Amino acid sequence: MKEIINCAAYADGRRIADVQLSEVHEVLKAKDKFVWIGLHEPSEAVLSTVQQQFGLHDLAVEDAHNAHQRPKVELYGDSVFVVLRTVEVSKDHRIEFGETHFFVGDNFIVTIRHGDGVSYADVRSRCESTPHLLSKGQGFALYSVMDFIVDHYYPVVQEMEQELQEIEDLIFKGNPNRDTTEQIYQLKRELLEVKRAVSPLIDVCNKLMRLDIKWISEETRPYFRDVYDHVVRINDMIENTRELLNTAMEANFSLISISQNDVSKKFAGWAAIIAVPTMVAGFYGMNFKFMPKSEWEYGFYAVVLLTIAACTLLYLVFKKTGWL
Amino acid sequence: MKEIINCAAYADGRRIADVQLSEVHEVLKAKDKFVWIGLHEPSEAVLSTVQQQFGLHDLAVEDAHNAHQRPKVELYGDSVFVVLRTVEVSKDHRIEFGETHFFVGDNFIVTIRHGDGVSYADVRSRCESTPHLLSKGQGFALYSVMDFIVDHYYPVVQEMEQELQEIEDLIFKGNPNRDTTEQIYQLKRELLEVKRAVSPLIDVCNKLMRLDIKWISEETRPYFRDVYDHVVRINDMIENTRELLNTAMEANFSLISISQNDVSKKFAGWAAIIAVPTMVAGFYGMNFKFMPKSEWEYGFYAVVLLTIAACTLLYLVFKKTGWL
Amino acid sequence: MKEIINCAAYADGRRIADVQLSEVHEVLKAKDKFVWIGLHEPSEAVLSTVQQQFGLHDLAVEDAHNAHQRPKVELYGDSVFVVLRTVEVSKDHRIEFGETHFFVGDNFIVTIRHGDGVSYADVRSRCESTPHLLSKGQGFALYSVMDFIVDHYYPVVQEMEQELQEIEDLIFKGNPNRDTTEQIYQLKRELLEVKRAVSPLIDVCNKLMRLDIKWISEETRPYFRDVYDHVVRINDMIENTRELLNTAMEANFSLISISQNDVSKKFAGWAAIIAVPTMVAGFYGMNFKFMPKSEWEYGFYAVVLLTIAACTLLYLVFKKTGWL
Amino acid sequence: MKEIINCAAYADGRRIADVQLSEVHEVLKAKDKFVWIGLHEPSEAVLSTVQQQFGLHDLAVEDAHNAHQRPKVELYGDSVFVVLRTVEVSKDHRIEFGETHFFVGDNFIVTIRHGDGVSYADVRSRCESTPHLLSKGQGFALYSVMDFIVDHYYPVVQEMEQELQEIEDLIFKGNPNRDTTEQIYQLKRELLEVKRAVSPLIDVCNKLMRLDIKWISEETRPYFRDVYDHVVRINDMIENTRELLNTAMEANFSLISISQNDVSKKFAGWAAIIAVPTMVAGFYGMNFKFMPKSEWEYGFYAVVLLTIAACTLLYLVFKKTGWL
Amino acid sequence: MKEIINCAAYADGRRIADVQLSEVHEVLKAKDKFVWIGLHEPSEAVLSTVQQQFGLHDLAVEDAHNAHQRPKVELYGDSVFVVLRTVEVSKDHRIEFGETHFFVGDNFIVTIRHGDGVSYADVRSRCESTPHLLSKGQGFALYSVMDFIVDHYYPVVQEMEQELQEIEDLIFKGNPNRDTTEQIYQLKRELLEVKRAVSPLIDVCNKLMRLDIKWISEETRPYFRDVYDHVVRINDMIENTRELLNTAMEANFSLISISQNDVSKKFAGWAAIIAVPTMVAGFYGMNFKFMPKSEWEYGFYAVVLLTIAACTLLYLVFKKTGWL
Repeated sequence: MKEIINCAAYADGRRIADVQLSEVHEVLKAKDKFVWIGLHEPSEAVLSTVQQQFGLHDLAVEDAHNAHQRPKVELYGDSVFVVLRTVEVSKDHRIEFGETHFFVGDNFIVTIRHGDGVSYADVRSRCESTPHLLSKGQGFALYSVMDFIVDHYYPVVQEMEQELQEIEDLIFKGNPNRDTTEQIYQLKRELLEVKRAVSPLIDVCNKLMRLDIKWISEETRPYFRDVYDHVVRINDMIENTRELLNTAMEANFSLISISQNDVSKKFAGWAAIIAVPTMVAGFYGMNFKFMPKSEWEYGFYAVVLLTIAACTLLYLVFKKTGWL
Repeated sequence: MKEIINCAAYADGRRIADVQLSEVHEVLKAKDKFVWIGLHEPSEAVLSTVQQQFGLHDLAVEDAHNAHQRPKVELYGDSVFVVLRTVEVSKDHRIEFGETHFFVGDNFIVTIRHGDGVSYADVRSRCESTPHLLSKGQGFALYSVMDFIVDHYYPVVQEMEQELQEIEDLIFKGNPNRDTTEQIYQLKRELLEVKRAVSPLIDVCNKLMRLDIKWISEETRPYFRDVYDHVVRINDMIENTRELLNTAMEANFSLISISQNDVSKKFAGWAAIIAVPTMVAGFYGMNFKFMPKSEWEYGFYAVVLLTIAACTLLYLVFKKTGWL
Repeated sequence: MKEIINCAAYADGRRIADVQLSEVHEVLKAKDKFVWIGLHEPSEAVLSTVQQQFGLHDLAVEDAHNAHQRPKVELYGDSVFVVLRTVEVSKDHRIEFGETHFFVGDNFIVTIRHGDGVSYADVRSRCESTPHLLSKGQGFALYSVMDFIVDHYYPVVQEMEQELQEIEDLIFKGNPNRDTTEQIYQLKRELLEVKRAVSPLIDVCNKLMRLDIKWISEETRPYFRDVYDHVVRINDMIENTRELLNTAMEANFSLISISQNDVSKKFAGWAAIIAVPTMVAGFYGMNFKFMPKSEWEYGFYAVVLLTIAACTLLYLVFKKTGWL
Repeated sequence: MKEIINCAAYADGRRIADVQLSEVHEVLKAKDKFVWIGLHEPSEAVLSTVQQQFGLHDLAVEDAHNAHQRPKVELYGDSVFVVLRTVEVSKDHRIEFGETHFFVGDNFIVTIRHGDGVSYADVRSRCESTPHLLSKGQGFALYSVMDFIVDHYYPVVQEMEQELQEIEDLIFKGNPNRDTTEQIYQLKRELLEVKRAVSPLIDVCNKLMRLDIKWISEETRPYFRDVYDHVVRINDMIENTRELLNTAMEANFSLISISQNDVSKKFAGWAAIIAVPTMVAGFYGMNFKFMPKSEWEYGFYAVVLLTIAACTLLYLVFKKTGWL
Repeated sequence: MKEIINCAAYADGRRIADVQLSEVHEVLKAKDKFVWIGLHEPSEAVLSTVQQQFGLHDLAVEDAHNAHQRPKVELYGDSVFVVLRTVEVSKDHRIEFGETHFFVGDNFIVTIRHGDGVSYADVRSRCESTPHLLSKGQGFALYSVMDFIVDHYYPVVQEMEQELQEIEDLIFKGNPNRDTTEQIYQLKRELLEVKRAVSPLIDVCNKLMRLDIKWISEETRPYFRDVYDHVVRINDMIENTRELLNTAMEANFSLISISQNDVSKKFAGWAAIIAVPTMVAGFYGMNFKFMPKSEWEYGFYAVVLLTIAACTLLYLVFKKTGWL
């Protein structure tokens, strides 16, 4: 995969030219234009070219190279460095994390994508198809990519809600076993990881809504509020799932105990039933000279039958009182 | 069900005319009037007519169409977009959620109802019957519908408090079983869902109380404070029920353990009682040539009787010490 | 019980006249006077007279009539509406809740008591006996009743602390049983209910301390701070009891488990002891032609005695190792 | 013990005279002097003399007399009323609580000690030995006593940390028993009580650091920040111990369950071993005419030996698989 | 190890001279220079020399000597006292804590290292190799050491995350035992201790970012924000591990209970199987004159074989239903 996905100049919301990374500064001399560069896991060389073209701060470039940041927004003079984490469900239902960084300044926006997530080419073409919106400037481009990233959180959270429901079924309809407990634990682990990616975004969006920067026009603010709103909602959904998961864990535990109780009862019941013939047999095994009916031809059968009858009776009584 | 429930112009708190949606802008040219439009799950076409008439923001209209928002209030210039969630108890005691959106501006209020909840026709007619209040303007109309929605939360919360009490009875008076645990879990799930609908409203009301907007007169503020107050109270009730529910879950768990203890004790007690005859019988089953009383005619009966006496004694002792 | 307990005019901290409710406005024409009215569960008629006399807001009067509010303070222009909840221990040690509302304005204070709690006649006469304090105005009267109400919280909280100690004794000295668990649950329920009555008061007092209103002189502020202080302390006590109660619940649970463990051990121990004679008897019950000592006259007795000795030995060993 | 421990006038950080309580106002006429009075559980008479001398507020004096306050700082005009709680470890390792109140004003500081804690005579003489510090005024005297009180919290918290470690040893090295659970509960109780004494101090110090009062010079502020710092650290230690204690409680519970598991396994193992001879004996006790080896002279011995061998084998197998 | 590791003067980001501690004030007369002193567990004598040279506050020096502080930043006039806690993993995988204090003023920075952690000589030489950065002044030197310290937190937290994963393996793949529970407890203890070292740093960095002090230029602020960012991330990782650890503890507990359940079931199953031959044998041990097949030559064998068959059948049934 190439590092530089796209590098184009925009004016009035329309793409006017594709430019070489090293010639970007030439383009920027003209007013009312901005450059939108899309990078994917760029090498140090490319990053340092970008840094020179736009005069980015060492610390931000270092962060962009390392790509193990928590979501944040940092202001360096007039330009802004934004870090988002991308979360996607892969084809085999696993959750995959990536990272996207933005450098946005007076007349440029650079998006740097890390990880194998979905490319932002679609977002770009959708923006290009609505020039009246993109003409709001690079702030709108930033919004578009952020909105795209946040929209990809929904299926992830829904996947986890789905998993929770499967766990509920296992708990309340199945039997308690080791796997359910491990599943709960693993879902919790995932939830916490997704939460770590999502929840700092609330603060990021909040800051972007309030930033007093030339290239964020009053008109673009509602768009960042819209992203904020989505993030808060996703965060709510995660919190909700987390609380339910905790309750599910406790419910699971209760049911394990009840099931243990059931085993004990069943055991006790059968032990009692079996004790009857053992006792009777024991008595008739005593070495007395005179024992009732011991000389009778059908004595053995009578005792066996009576014992079976007694056991059956006990069985029925236990069945009725819930001990079996 | 039709989409446009109502569309009328008001002046001085009195309905002066029913208007066509497409002619609303004509009516609004006159000062001191406002239009109150009631929609129910409107189609995209109707919504876009409304948008054109009042110049609503794209993002808000998109939200109003999607109807999966969390309660919020958003300011777009002079007009406001409010989202509430409705919660009602259906006839078969299930909790049903809906959503209501409001667009309120300089001389209009649009209510958009989603879901099969109660219609707001009653609220409108009640407002019309108190023109001295409705003359406070569209702010009062907004309050009236919000108050109506919030009033419908009470029976829902009371229903859940009722359910909690039934669970308490099951826990403390009945026997622990799987169903109680599941009932607790399901009530928790419901509680969390209702909470998600109610608690963001605190913030919404707070914002409405403080909004510095022409069409919210100083006189209408106490009304929003009143709604705020109700929401806080309902939220308290939910929190309370939640905490009690958590405690109930733990109490349930304790009682399951105690009940397990009781089973073990009972089992142990009966095992001890049954051990007596088995042991006695075993001894008299030994093949010794000389055994006491073994030649005695009533030996068998004597042993049986003595054994029964011993068992009865044990039974009484165990009964007294709480092992049976 | 009559509705209007008291209705008197005060000047310079002294009661100057008893007045008719309907003539209150006459009295108020004179400066430097204020009227103190005490009502008990007033009818709608009385309330509406009061409303007319002092020009109270509809919403506040409606709240005062409903009497299911959470503690709050609301400012309507120059007058204030305060809601407190009263909590008292009844003679049969049950906790009883009531509600008291206040309307305080430029030259009046109205107290409206709901529920069968203690009357405020004592507070009034105590105020009247210290004219130098009551001369601070209706703010001081408000403080006096609030202080009186808050002072009645202490015995309630102490009652609950007492109950907690009884529960501790049951847990650590008694045996685990169903009743202890239920007692913990019920105390938690009570605690939460009292907490709901008390904790919003912190905010109420805070607001009263900061209210910028003519009739709260700089001199009365320390008095509201004093009430604030008491409420914070009571709230601390409740929180403390709640945390201890949670711990008590867990401790109870631990001890139930330990007790279960003890039962199991005891059971196992006795089972082992009883297994010895059963086994011995079994062996001597085998049908071999040649068995040791079986022909010996005292064989039976010897075996019985040896068995008893073995059992006694086992008993002593188990007793020492804590299995019995 | 006498009520008035000390009553002296200071100038330039040096004690210039011992004065009579009733003549204090004479001394105070001179500028740049302050009086430092030390009281111990004063009678109402002494307190009211102090009140008259310095014009203290009724509410504060009432609080000082009752001595059941939570730590707080209250501003009355130019003077300040401070309440601290003292905590000390007594000789028999019990935790003892006391209370100390301060009235500090323009030219005086009064310390009122309740309870049998350590006297502040040492603090006073240490202050007198550093006149360059004490010359900062009564603010420094206040700091000195507060610092002294806070320093006494450390041994208390360390005592509790020590106790926690003993509990850990009991849990992880000993066997679960009722006493460990009770010890955990009692430590939690103590922790909460100490926390209630310490944590409000954070707020108190914070307020003192920010108070805009003549007699707290800019130079004394760092000293109150120092106390603040200690209190925060102690509070951290308490929080830490509390969280560990909660975890210890859960760990204890886990180990009780494991231990129960061990008992069950052991029981099951022995039951299986004992079942072997019982079964064998039973078979040879059957009344068949033809049984293998039953006529053989050593049949009995052979069966006994084989049975013992089988039991030994089972024992070894169970020992290896951890069931015994 | 010597106390004074380094003492050098810097100008324009370059080391210009090594100076004697006692002559530092001479150097400082020249403008645009600053002195960087590195101490390791200094004696009281050295500390007091430093105090005199830079006019440090008594309280700060006392703190620097005691070295049992929580991370904090304190402003004394123009100079600042910073306390950090160092955390490192020793070679035998134990976590070791240390402390580093900073005095930073107009033209000096003093670092005081306590404990056996890594020396800051490397940081110093790295700073000296980038004079264009170090020329930003002592603020940058402070940043460099702080960054170095915070970077050393990562391996510690990763070590703990590693430990958590080992615990997970023990829980979900191994059998529940006492050691797992103790390991969880010990990891929690470590986590809390590390958290206490790390989390107050968030506040420290925040304050440093906002401090309005001459020697922190606008250019150095982003560097402190960078440290802030790292600390927040580490804190997140710790919180995450803590929450997972709590869940792991509960999962462990659930699995202990399930394992107990398994033991009970297995026990019950084997007891039932053994009960069959015992019962059969008992019946054939009865002393009746006429018993079926008792005279038959192969009776004994037939009964034995039938019993074995019955037991095998039971075994298979139990195996299938999961009771064995």
